[in-house]
Amino acid sequence: MKRTKVKEVLQTPASGQEVLVKGWVRTKRGNKFVTFIAVNDGSTIHNIQVVADMTLFTDEALKEVTTGASVSVLGSLVQSQGKGQSVEIQARTIEVLGTADPETYPLQKKGHSLEFLREIAHLRPRTNTFGAVLRIRHAMAFAVHQYFNNKGFFYIHTPIITASDAEGAGEMFRVTTLDPVNPPKTETGEVDFSEDFFGKSTNLTVSGQLEGEVTAMALSEIYTFGPTFRAENSNTSRHLAEFWMIEPEMAFYELEDNMDLAEDFLKYLVRYALDNCMDDLQFLNDMYDKELLSRLNFVVENDFQRLTYTEAIDVLVGAKQKFEYKVEWGTDLQSEHERYLVEKHYKKPVILTNYPKDIKSFYMKLNDDGKTVRAMDVLFPGIGEIIGGSQREESYEKLVTRMREMGVPEKEMWWFLDTRRFGTVPHSGFGLGFERLLLFVTGMGNIRDVIPFPRFPKSAEF
Amino acid sequence: MKRTKVKEVLQTPASGQEVLVKGWVRTKRGNKFVTFIAVNDGSTIHNIQVVADMTLFTDEALKEVTTGASVSVLGSLVQSQGKGQSVEIQARTIEVLGTADPETYPLQKKGHSLEFLREIAHLRPRTNTFGAVLRIRHAMAFAVHQYFNNKGFFYIHTPIITASDAEGAGEMFRVTTLDPVNPPKTETGEVDFSEDFFGKSTNLTVSGQLEGEVTAMALSEIYTFGPTFRAENSNTSRHLAEFWMIEPEMAFYELEDNMDLAEDFLKYLVRYALDNCMDDLQFLNDMYDKELLSRLNFVVENDFQRLTYTEAIDVLVGAKQKFEYKVEWGTDLQSEHERYLVEKHYKKPVILTNYPKDIKSFYMKLNDDGKTVRAMDVLFPGIGEIIGGSQREESYEKLVTRMREMGVPEKEMWWFLDTRRFGTVPHSGFGLGFERLLLFVTGMGNIRDVIPFPRFPKSAEF
Repeated sequence: MKRTKVKEVLQTPASGQEVLVKGWVRTKRGNKFVTFIAVNDGSTIHNIQVVADMTLFTDEALKEVTTGASVSVLGSLVQSQGKGQSVEIQARTIEVLGTADPETYPLQKKGHSLEFLREIAHLRPRTNTFGAVLRIRHAMAFAVHQYFNNKGFFYIHTPIITASDAEGAGEMFRVTTLDPVNPPKTETGEVDFSEDFFGKSTNLTVSGQLEGEVTAMALSEIYTFGPTFRAENSNTSRHLAEFWMIEPEMAFYELEDNMDLAEDFLKYLVRYALDNCMDDLQFLNDMYDKELLSRLNFVVENDFQRLTYTEAIDVLVGAKQKFEYKVEWGTDLQSEHERYLVEKHYKKPVILTNYPKDIKSFYMKLNDDGKTVRAMDVLFPGIGEIIGGSQREESYEKLVTRMREMGVPEKEMWWFLDTRRFGTVPHSGFGLGFERLLLFVTGMGNIRDVIPFPRFPKSAEF
Repeated sequence: MKRTKVKEVLQTPASGQEVLVKGWVRTKRGNKFVTFIAVNDGSTIHNIQVVADMTLFTDEALKEVTTGASVSVLGSLVQSQGKGQSVEIQARTIEVLGTADPETYPLQKKGHSLEFLREIAHLRPRTNTFGAVLRIRHAMAFAVHQYFNNKGFFYIHTPIITASDAEGAGEMFRVTTLDPVNPPKTETGEVDFSEDFFGKSTNLTVSGQLEGEVTAMALSEIYTFGPTFRAENSNTSRHLAEFWMIEPEMAFYELEDNMDLAEDFLKYLVRYALDNCMDDLQFLNDMYDKELLSRLNFVVENDFQRLTYTEAIDVLVGAKQKFEYKVEWGTDLQSEHERYLVEKHYKKPVILTNYPKDIKSFYMKLNDDGKTVRAMDVLFPGIGEIIGGSQREESYEKLVTRMREMGVPEKEMWWFLDTRRFGTVPHSGFGLGFERLLLFVTGMGNIRDVIPFPRFPKSAEF
């Protein structure tokens, strides 16, 4: 007989038909007449209740049916008498596939701290919280692909190992096959990277943007969705050494088009979660963050506030609130400033544009004022910057000038510059940190809890 | 006015309506009365023909309209008089957005060798061939996600940086932030990896399988789709140092279920390509491989031949063909053997099962004969092994025994072993090399031509 997933079983009207369910025991309770076994198979946050009539089963036969054990249950699907579920299974046979010793199995009934669960990241997908987070993570990844596929964007796999540094976005991990103890050396005592696997020093990518731009100059609209890396010694709830980024790049888009896309994209993703993950969102709302659902609905229903950096500075300077960091034209905004704009002043997502060129990357298009660039940051409640992007500088001369001013190695970037030499066009793009999105959508507080196996300083476990 | 993509324009019935098209010039030809400009924007392999009436345009105005230049064309969409297209644009204005100097732009009209195009991988997406390949690559990636999403599988991002080695699948790249010249050393003169970023020696992953298995033990059916790495000095048309893998892992699947899934999955992908990428496939069929389409149809229409390794050995021993490598029970099959089975003997895709345990990985389920494991390899014409998988060993004792026999470090794998200690279940999975799939679907001969920016020994350009 074919197994039916719990999600499907729970949606099936009960008429006494036979079903085969397989999954893991969450709880067992009962009395001498009847035993109730809650079984979960990860297809949904809800368990199916298995009812064992103790005139048919012995205590001995159910001895190994303990929390964490895997079972195969054959029985008839009937309407439930109890609260909390519409259907349940009257068991005919219960087979234990794999036991879980109650003395050693770490996930007993009681709640566990998120800190403790991080230490058993290999088992935490078996909890309600991480089941919910991982199902939402899947749904959001699928929604990303569906959104772009529907719009005629092409998914491009940009390289992970790279010899170039997109934007000096941060410290990089070196990738090497040289002998760590005695690497080959040049006459001057430097490491001889010409002997390394790729014939030069290589790193893990910090962004697929440059390769994305190059491809958009042929296919018009592309996006990347891949892992990116920062070798920064940041032990915070907002940073990972390895995380996933989504980076669309679009030929023929100006800054306004870029903002429209970013807003539409974020709303699509949040709406997709509301439409497809309500059970999991409801659980997270109830357990962790009572305002999660209302915050998600708010983003879908409201236009994002658009203003320039310069206007934002005026708002902040005029604010009654005292900030730890002083606000002044030309300085980067701190988290406290971004949150003031979003949470206190406008009370909605904000898109800030036209930042001072000195605090942004070399590839951003210079405005006619010579002082600001066509950057845009999307700021979200509780998160701060969720998207960073810009119109890109399409003029070869202006780009080279900016590279020289900012010390970006021109020679290594010949291929990137070629796009401005041959058929250059106005174009734009942005980056969305996938885990930042998930923090927003799940309401979880720590970025290590929205990725299956987090990587951070001193930790590459599992 | 809003830009319309060429793909959409070509599907629009011509009634003289105004359209705005933006893209790159492929060719320009004509006479003193009329100029024809073929414009491509990457949305499709087809160009839109722009017709410039030379009573409206001067030669001077069109001087910079050269191959590779980017243009914005406003005009009316009319039925085409010429062969090869149904509609064309009667230009009202033609604006050159970015020039491409004919003296230096590398992609002139004439065909280019694939070798030459590899050296300008940043520009090759502008050719018909690589436009087609990248659009098909996108379509296949989307089809992967759609297939699994429809079936209730969850997409899991397994870690890229890892301290464990899944299967000894190959040489690994080290990931480090230690000083390359003077790394910290222990008292015995070894490199002190406790000072490295993650507090231990780490590498780029060769497979997400182990983490995938762990997650399937909670969510039932999952898949990974991410980059994997091999630091092997293989300069062949079949190997990359960085490539993408799809690895589904399913709880409660036995080998037969695994084979059913693999066959259904591959057929779905090929059918998706036939249904959604026919223009690009037709081009590749005509230009590179006249049997491409018939081969794709053949895979969709025929059941795969399933047989055991032992049966295959009998077939090969009895074959009239002379092989370079001798066939003998216990040895791994060579490419020539696989191709004989697929292309000569059965003339269809083949799934081989139950290989000798000594030539397969430690995690594969041991058969009752004690000699073979429940492995499966799917063999395709022209490609050889396109999928490798197995039912996994779910017994803790048997798994530990195999690990000891094969020298797999037990202590580091505590978390993997935990899945067999707590609620273990029969489960299976497989790996599909995404670029191998693309070789098959596109008919391209070199794996460096089915990934945007290939990584191989001595090359990490772009």
